Amino acid sequence: MTKSVFYHAGCPVCVSAEQDIVSLIGSDKVEIVHLGEQKSRIDEAESKGVKSVPALLTPSGNVLHLNFGASISDVKG
Amino acid sequence: MTKSVFYHAGCPVCVSAEQDIVSLIGSDKVEIVHLGEQKSRIDEAESKGVKSVPALLTPSGNVLHLNFGASISDVKG
Repeated sequence: MTKSVFYHAGCPVCVSAEQDIVSLIGSDKVEIVHLGEQKSRIDEAESKGVKSVPALLTPSGNVLHLNFGASISDVKG
Repeated sequence: MTKSVFYHAGCPVCVSAEQDIVSLIGSDKVEIVHLGEQKSRIDEAESKGVKSVPALLTPSGNVLHLNFGASISDVKG
């Protein structure tokens, strides 16, 4: 895995964090996943250790949870 | 301001996040500040909007609070 993955759910705090992350890391180095629109990827996010969004899965496999926006259970609902 | 500033306090979750952030953004683009060792900069961090560590202050002035490690009040103590 060479790209980071930024999981979010469209909430204002997510969008703000997304703009910062993309600007810092570079848009070519991060995949953006909207879990509200791509519910099929919620299981993937959970299996990677994502507990809330927005979160950044790094190439090393660590998950950085950013400014708390919503829990994964909220996104499922 | 062209550099990001990563504020932390030496806790394990801080160090782990630091390694990821430096790796993602590039060590030349982020200043690392250990608030436990540089208590004179706690006021600066608070004035920028840092509420807990680890946190990343971006060049645009936004603060991204990462995996919750410690509150600013804990660092002061």
